[in-house]
Amino acid sequence: MPRRAAIRRPPVIALLTDFGLSDHFVGVMKGVIVQRLPDARFIDITHAVEPGRIRQGAFTLWNAASYLPEGSVVLAVVDPGVGTDRGISILRTGRLTFVAPENGLLDLVRSDDPRATAFRPTSRTISRLSLPDPSSTFHGRDIFAPLAASLAGGQRAERLGTRTRLPEAGPWRATPAAPAVAPEIMSVDRFGNLITNIALPGGREIHRTVRMVSIGKIMVSQAIRAYDEAPENTPCLIRGSSGLLEVVVRGRSASVLLGAHDRTPVRVVWT
Amino acid sequence: MPRRAAIRRPPVIALLTDFGLSDHFVGVMKGVIVQRLPDARFIDITHAVEPGRIRQGAFTLWNAASYLPEGSVVLAVVDPGVGTDRGISILRTGRLTFVAPENGLLDLVRSDDPRATAFRPTSRTISRLSLPDPSSTFHGRDIFAPLAASLAGGQRAERLGTRTRLPEAGPWRATPAAPAVAPEIMSVDRFGNLITNIALPGGREIHRTVRMVSIGKIMVSQAIRAYDEAPENTPCLIRGSSGLLEVVVRGRSASVLLGAHDRTPVRVVWT
Amino acid sequence: MPRRAAIRRPPVIALLTDFGLSDHFVGVMKGVIVQRLPDARFIDITHAVEPGRIRQGAFTLWNAASYLPEGSVVLAVVDPGVGTDRGISILRTGRLTFVAPENGLLDLVRSDDPRATAFRPTSRTISRLSLPDPSSTFHGRDIFAPLAASLAGGQRAERLGTRTRLPEAGPWRATPAAPAVAPEIMSVDRFGNLITNIALPGGREIHRTVRMVSIGKIMVSQAIRAYDEAPENTPCLIRGSSGLLEVVVRGRSASVLLGAHDRTPVRVVWT
Repeated sequence: MPRRAAIRRPPVIALLTDFGLSDHFVGVMKGVIVQRLPDARFIDITHAVEPGRIRQGAFTLWNAASYLPEGSVVLAVVDPGVGTDRGISILRTGRLTFVAPENGLLDLVRSDDPRATAFRPTSRTISRLSLPDPSSTFHGRDIFAPLAASLAGGQRAERLGTRTRLPEAGPWRATPAAPAVAPEIMSVDRFGNLITNIALPGGREIHRTVRMVSIGKIMVSQAIRAYDEAPENTPCLIRGSSGLLEVVVRGRSASVLLGAHDRTPVRVVWT
Repeated sequence: MPRRAAIRRPPVIALLTDFGLSDHFVGVMKGVIVQRLPDARFIDITHAVEPGRIRQGAFTLWNAASYLPEGSVVLAVVDPGVGTDRGISILRTGRLTFVAPENGLLDLVRSDDPRATAFRPTSRTISRLSLPDPSSTFHGRDIFAPLAASLAGGQRAERLGTRTRLPEAGPWRATPAAPAVAPEIMSVDRFGNLITNIALPGGREIHRTVRMVSIGKIMVSQAIRAYDEAPENTPCLIRGSSGLLEVVVRGRSASVLLGAHDRTPVRVVWT
Repeated sequence: MPRRAAIRRPPVIALLTDFGLSDHFVGVMKGVIVQRLPDARFIDITHAVEPGRIRQGAFTLWNAASYLPEGSVVLAVVDPGVGTDRGISILRTGRLTFVAPENGLLDLVRSDDPRATAFRPTSRTISRLSLPDPSSTFHGRDIFAPLAASLAGGQRAERLGTRTRLPEAGPWRATPAAPAVAPEIMSVDRFGNLITNIALPGGREIHRTVRMVSIGKIMVSQAIRAYDEAPENTPCLIRGSSGLLEVVVRGRSASVLLGAHDRTPVRVVWT
């Protein structure tokens, strides 16, 4: 009697790149994957990482990782070194498998998951899987997409590469216990909110951790729980949805109002 | 003998937000949904509603609604009041089920479908379905996405909430029969066309309904049937694809040329 | 004994438009297709073709075509003549089936595949498949999406239209053997790289084909293999991933630095 095949969930590939959505780049990566894995389904994290901004990509990956379906493959390509001898990483965490250039793009994810294991695809794997005559300018299409399709199709990282040790990814969150990490703006979101790297424990008032922050000459100490509670034109502190402190202005861009950006330093008065 | 299960169409979830595509927000909502409903398929209406512009979101939803597959769940999040005590609506029309913050985002859809029934999820439903420790800043991920997954998975609105009466959503289309509705620009589309709220019956010449409109000091009376019929640099009237009057300039942005925007008032001379 | 039904791969529809992602246009086209073909899957090539820029769309289509899954339907709508009597083409190449307005949008693809066969849908097909009361301003939704759904669902082009001969699509790549084709910038990509129409054979040094190009008063002769090899602030030549010569500046926009754009002429000194 034939056995019933288990119903197979379609393999999920989540994508993050700095390719933008104006060129053919993203569509073509998906085309390559679907050719090899017709039931692959995609979740676009973003393709709007600014060109070559590895740290910005790393932060967005970190924000997304816990909410992607377990077992997903995450294909991340912010790759200014494409065509040079920079390596390629396959990183397996408890829930996900990442494929990315070996340039720091996975550092924030790795920092949070010290038991993650890294593999470097062998050159034999790369030439076996890659498109014929791979270019030296678009590895996303020619090398990374085929690798992601292979992993999402069930191939194990052990079969594609050799275990490797990456240099330790240090802490990146500022807390009173990590004085070596400088507080700064990590990201400006769509709403102009300033997302810092200052970690706030859940379920506690902001003021039990942080009394005040200052950005340039602006001191911000008023804590709110919902954006809409902020008084008009008043920068406020809020605990963002990833557990980081944000500086926000209701209905406006705090980034514009405070002249602060990605990597702007922040001073903190801890409680 | 085992019965053959009916082939189930993958549940469709259509999405509209003001989250943009640069952050992790949209990908993370999809990740949450796919975790709970692995075969969900998404149709992105748009994520480019300007931050907090509820009316713009409401208009785009209305434009899309009739063309989404029957039975789709529409998840709409333009939510400046996130984290406050603003309510959540589940709205069931003849063809679709909407989930959205209770802030007017569904008003245009409701106005067109007076028999639509609204439900407000109980706090028990919300705490049962939501992600653990929901944030007060990202209900799209923590509350709305789980609600949409539940509905798209077949759960009935009656089981998730209690019937509720929303304040009546008044008419929004300007017609000779509705003198209380002020004619205005509802939206500027990608091509710079000015979409008004002036309703034109199908299958009739524009001039049988409207003789002329003026925007600021510019009077527009020339009616065309195809964009390409317009003389150069001449604002013209056309019946748009949603049955509303548009003011257009061939190959250029009427918005730029006429200095008109979303909410710019329009004067109409009815025929 | 019952025969095993062949597992049917979900039909792939690739999309390219100038509709942008801010309006409801793209979502609504997908809605129409999913209503008719519930298991259709989409690959978005791009929706950011600048309004009405047919040549830009044609080039992006050409860049994507070889990497889309065999058997895909490609729905391409850059259609300034919507509502006029411009025709509609169905084009069948060895691997793909395209549907597009008959305005040159498929010219680059056709130029590369001279055996491609073109069909023009009959007016009977169009009225049978179209949405009721099609608009004269949004054929993407009312006519093209239904055509694409029908083709992706397995209908043959022969059943939808009549064989037609399109005017020959001439060569568009500049080579020493095609002196009639003027070298020019075809496209500026997301990174500001200038993509020319100058064809470079694979596996050969750039300097075996091109010694130097000049754009305005800037002469560029340094050839590199990877973007990261370029000296700072120095425009360099590289073979791009579609086999065309690119002018690039490491970490910056060559377009901004050289003041060059789409259609800027290029002078070439062939080797």
